[in-house]
Amino acid sequence: MTTTAEPAAADACVVGIDFGTLSGRASVIRVRDGHELATAVHAYPDGVIDTRLPGGRTLPPDWALQNPRDWIAVLATAVPAAVRDAGVDPAQIIGIGTDFTACTVLPTTADGTPLCELPGYGDRPHAWPKLWKHHAAQPHADRINALAHARREPWITRYGGKISSEWQVAKALQVLEEDPEAYAATERWIEAADWIVWQLTGVETRNACTAGYKGILQDGAYPTPGFFAALNPAFADYADTRLSTGLLPLGAPAGRLTERAAGWTGLPAGIVVAAGNVDAHVSAPAVGVTEPGHLLAVMGTSTCHVMSADTLAEVPGMCGVVDGGIIAGRYGYEAGQSGVGDLFAWWTEHHVPGSYRDAARTAGISLHQHLTALTADDPVGAHGLLALDWMNGNRSILVDHTLSGVIVGLTLASRPEHVYRALLEATAFGTRRILEAFRDAGVPVAEFYAAGGLTQNTTLMQLYADVLGYPIHIAATSQAPALGSAIHAAVAAGAYPDVPAAAAVMGRVHRDAYRPDPARHDAYTRLYADYRTLHDYFGAAGTASAGVMRRLRGMRDAARREPAPALASPGTADRREPTTLTGDPR
Amino acid sequence: MTTTAEPAAADACVVGIDFGTLSGRASVIRVRDGHELATAVHAYPDGVIDTRLPGGRTLPPDWALQNPRDWIAVLATAVPAAVRDAGVDPAQIIGIGTDFTACTVLPTTADGTPLCELPGYGDRPHAWPKLWKHHAAQPHADRINALAHARREPWITRYGGKISSEWQVAKALQVLEEDPEAYAATERWIEAADWIVWQLTGVETRNACTAGYKGILQDGAYPTPGFFAALNPAFADYADTRLSTGLLPLGAPAGRLTERAAGWTGLPAGIVVAAGNVDAHVSAPAVGVTEPGHLLAVMGTSTCHVMSADTLAEVPGMCGVVDGGIIAGRYGYEAGQSGVGDLFAWWTEHHVPGSYRDAARTAGISLHQHLTALTADDPVGAHGLLALDWMNGNRSILVDHTLSGVIVGLTLASRPEHVYRALLEATAFGTRRILEAFRDAGVPVAEFYAAGGLTQNTTLMQLYADVLGYPIHIAATSQAPALGSAIHAAVAAGAYPDVPAAAAVMGRVHRDAYRPDPARHDAYTRLYADYRTLHDYFGAAGTASAGVMRRLRGMRDAARREPAPALASPGTADRREPTTLTGDPR
Repeated sequence: MTTTAEPAAADACVVGIDFGTLSGRASVIRVRDGHELATAVHAYPDGVIDTRLPGGRTLPPDWALQNPRDWIAVLATAVPAAVRDAGVDPAQIIGIGTDFTACTVLPTTADGTPLCELPGYGDRPHAWPKLWKHHAAQPHADRINALAHARREPWITRYGGKISSEWQVAKALQVLEEDPEAYAATERWIEAADWIVWQLTGVETRNACTAGYKGILQDGAYPTPGFFAALNPAFADYADTRLSTGLLPLGAPAGRLTERAAGWTGLPAGIVVAAGNVDAHVSAPAVGVTEPGHLLAVMGTSTCHVMSADTLAEVPGMCGVVDGGIIAGRYGYEAGQSGVGDLFAWWTEHHVPGSYRDAARTAGISLHQHLTALTADDPVGAHGLLALDWMNGNRSILVDHTLSGVIVGLTLASRPEHVYRALLEATAFGTRRILEAFRDAGVPVAEFYAAGGLTQNTTLMQLYADVLGYPIHIAATSQAPALGSAIHAAVAAGAYPDVPAAAAVMGRVHRDAYRPDPARHDAYTRLYADYRTLHDYFGAAGTASAGVMRRLRGMRDAARREPAPALASPGTADRREPTTLTGDPR
Repeated sequence: MTTTAEPAAADACVVGIDFGTLSGRASVIRVRDGHELATAVHAYPDGVIDTRLPGGRTLPPDWALQNPRDWIAVLATAVPAAVRDAGVDPAQIIGIGTDFTACTVLPTTADGTPLCELPGYGDRPHAWPKLWKHHAAQPHADRINALAHARREPWITRYGGKISSEWQVAKALQVLEEDPEAYAATERWIEAADWIVWQLTGVETRNACTAGYKGILQDGAYPTPGFFAALNPAFADYADTRLSTGLLPLGAPAGRLTERAAGWTGLPAGIVVAAGNVDAHVSAPAVGVTEPGHLLAVMGTSTCHVMSADTLAEVPGMCGVVDGGIIAGRYGYEAGQSGVGDLFAWWTEHHVPGSYRDAARTAGISLHQHLTALTADDPVGAHGLLALDWMNGNRSILVDHTLSGVIVGLTLASRPEHVYRALLEATAFGTRRILEAFRDAGVPVAEFYAAGGLTQNTTLMQLYADVLGYPIHIAATSQAPALGSAIHAAVAAGAYPDVPAAAAVMGRVHRDAYRPDPARHDAYTRLYADYRTLHDYFGAAGTASAGVMRRLRGMRDAARREPAPALASPGTADRREPTTLTGDPR
């Protein structure tokens, strides 16, 4: 199926659907100018499944699953709601684009049925889709990395020298080794990004972005059967049987809306559906990021950094570099921070006393806003704290999910708002470390763009400008992924010749929304030097210091596996009767 | 004045008065068996003065003062209340003993009037008594230490190579250099421990304990005028004019109760008052700790470790070794941890959400008990955390109040009770480090005793036994300092020949109240190895790593001095109008 670029009708619209971590949202976007007519959100009823399956079975630590029915429900609720709110005739909709969290990956039958929906599979954890932040495959990732380096696999350097435990292959190997029956029943191992397109079009396709970044497809091929066999003999045919090398470039049409999917969405059957995409990557054109050296940070629960360049470089600790991974025809670089908004939420929810909550309520602001405001006027360094932002592991540049968070400088005068600000700063320092890695590898960042929910925190964004020393251009839409998906839909439908052309018209950005303050940048540069000291101390692989975190994690995991002896009982003698030492009164 | 040991009347009693950080308490104790008849407490109305003077003047960071009137109020309220509650005739009371926090030190006139009570001095911070935890003299302590090493002063090794900023000389130098007028008006610079005895007897005396541990009096002499002059020419006569070398051994009579003090206390004028003493040191005989190698940890807001030995050793990082500093005739060793109960209170008060408070209230227990119970059954290491217990600095063995607390291993699954337990463990690791230092210096700890408010937490005490690998003998009195003071009063009054003899009869202990569990001890020994790694990394002076904490503290202090530029304003452009990137709709 091919389409050619031709002007769309003046009132033509596209639908962009963004599948996030906790909810999915659909936006109706006007093709001629990118104007957002309406957006509707549907929260996943099962959300992140990380403690027990819907059937009740308990999950081990570090697991994170999702329910594919929650995704279908987005098609059936958010899409019709957005079209209705937009006040457009469904006949005006000329295409659909989608994006997904990644690597969110699931086992299906040959017809695309999720394994967890097969009879007898509902209570098998490995039959369910593994959400991006499922981190229980770290031992498998460790083996994949060790083997790749031992065999000098050429692709490993494309990923900063490390494969993440979040990716397709580590998660698949975990399924094979922990539930071989489920693995045997897995006829297709597919990104949710592609699975949702399959549901819309009835055709299985694979997109260049997830295949490259999450599937280790490089230069047209996956790792060899010999490599997979060396991990586990039963894993030899993993890629040959369960993946696909026939890739669609981003913005290409994947197929046409089926009658069944038209029934869910209320959209006309037969309209074009664009190839799958990833939430962060699809956002780049939404804010006009298509040029080499322009980096977009998509800042939410985690942060994903995407940047295109004309050259292929090996950047240590990158998530990956993929030909056409962001913009067709350019090398797409991806880096990431595993925990950003998640960190702020964790601290706010679990380490802030009720008096702060009361004060925020009285002021009519959120607890986040209250904590932010309490130190907004403080000079750099006034709290005396420095944190490592690894409470959810480190994706770039250390690619190690066994790393953990650190707070240094605590005193009895440290208050929750001080730690909160130190966490804001730590995530900015983590971003700066990534920018340094790009610079050092010869693909420097020329412009810094930001999108995502965290950009609404103006104090945070000014802090990022001050820490990074870059002006920050902010997405002028709160629905950058949905807008990006809509841009790809418009291209797939032939309304624009390519994504950069569509992005130039439909993308929306506030240029120079924040400019660094030189004095604060200097102060943060001094603090950042100590962040680097701690980063390298705790993060350097193979050193005694890095061992501290690995040993703590090992002890934690072992303790969770073994029965717990009570602390108080065995050594405690009866303490009721005091003993006078000796002798008589004089 | 001398007394000789002779049997006291069968109903003879003594009064022990313990001046703590937040309150003073008086106990009436029977001489013949150490039985506690009654105890009364008086909370200091002004408590710890650390933000503003009673007159309103704001204090800089790290200051901590007290009001001497609060101490007199203890004599006038707690003592008569205790005697009344004991149901004894005041005529049965044959002596008074006292103990105090140290180094708590104040400037007075020649007649003992506190400077802060002189006209015109009430709003001068340096005219007030400096509480032990006043830490603002750290720069002065740093200079004293540097000079002592440069001049190879013989006494510096008696203090583990470092003088604390808490001690008399650092605090006096701070007065001289920050308020020379107040220093000039200071005719006597005296420990509160000796000042309170002065108020009771009308006679100025100095005791061997505070003069040795806090005043740097060794082998009968203070540092030389030449040493003091090298710090500051105006400081040359500091010891000659404001201190005293005429010391009383512990347990010696200091004088007799004056009519004025009899009026405050309701006790008979003329009864014996024992020499001043320190709360931790005086507690040793209260639990029968008089033998060499028996160590008592007095565990409260901070922990003080006291142990006697027959040999003089130089233990790195000790607070001090003083001839007769705990038991006359033996070398007394003191070590300490700056923050223990303080740490638990800080975390509980400032970093625990309201839901925990509600749950504790529903269960009818304190928040401390609730947090303790939540992890009491967890295996060692289950929380994955490791903390350095330096939130209030490090007294032993690093003697550095610019050090700060660290938490490593944080994840999004870390909850307040996990950090709370990590803090409990960190303080136990800090104690273990001190025991190691004793062992390595050739004065090993043979038996471990504990007293103080924290011993009521049975989970904590079992944890200490498991971490240390020692059985723990617990004070069988909640008023160990007051009982210890009473023991000294009985000796001063002649009822026993010496403190060990009195302690053997009057002291009270639960032997083997806690015994280490071998498996948990092994697990904690593994965790402790990583505590040592972090301890040495952040604590080693002169390394880049130790510099992290020092630089953070320096930035914090500098930031507090400078006016605060607002974070949000200067770099923030107007963000109301989105910019469409370029071009027209096609």
